[in-house]
Amino acid sequence: MQPPLTIIGIIHSELKKLEDCPRQEDEEAPEASLTILPAFRAGIKDITAGDELLLFSWLHKADRQTLSTRPRNNPNKSLTGVFSTRSPNRPNPIGLHRVSVRSVSDTGVINVSGLEVLNQTPLIDIKSVSNK
Amino acid sequence: MQPPLTIIGIIHSELKKLEDCPRQEDEEAPEASLTILPAFRAGIKDITAGDELLLFSWLHKADRQTLSTRPRNNPNKSLTGVFSTRSPNRPNPIGLHRVSVRSVSDTGVINVSGLEVLNQTPLIDIKSVSNK
Repeated sequence: MQPPLTIIGIIHSELKKLEDCPRQEDEEAPEASLTILPAFRAGIKDITAGDELLLFSWLHKADRQTLSTRPRNNPNKSLTGVFSTRSPNRPNPIGLHRVSVRSVSDTGVINVSGLEVLNQTPLIDIKSVSNK
Repeated sequence: MQPPLTIIGIIHSELKKLEDCPRQEDEEAPEASLTILPAFRAGIKDITAGDELLLFSWLHKADRQTLSTRPRNNPNKSLTGVFSTRSPNRPNPIGLHRVSVRSVSDTGVINVSGLEVLNQTPLIDIKSVSNK
């Protein structure tokens, strides 16, 4: 079984190359915007400025064959099983990002703060941080 | 683009029917075990008892057409866009679960506490809770 993912939107950011990406969200991550595709806009109707969300991205530039890695690309660290790390390189390169909503436009664009992914990264899910 | 997910393992739990599932992890979630498929076992070599992990499951019984829902199936709540909720029903039904590792066997079985998914749910990713 290889269930197909549905892309629900696209992330726009100032990070044009992988080398530009901070390693984790708390390290000077810039603002970014999410363009939700028309077919999925009914799902964001209750998102408003100030909401705290979990974004799930599909890190399309990642290497899906990787099973061990040196954490944070540090050559001094020993090779570690990817499932003990937050490396983007892994069999299913799903990025998990906590963001704050700055604004939402009528056209399905959500501006968020603190998101460190490459421009044009696909978005696959959004969840409320709180248990609703 | 509909990237295919790779199943890395299977979750075994005592929850045989959807009606058995607690709604969130902090509500009496039982213990469960993860059987990692042989092709992906190199990725768990550094997981040990006491680790705090994020599990990503594929909620294969969910309805992928749902864009609005009554939070927590409460008929008194108004219809809410799914991306403002934690409902399992959504275009990509990815479950996110924080668990503690109880033990890991030589055969790739990880016993965890506090996991509320249906028996036989596919596992698609494991990440460290901390930023490694």
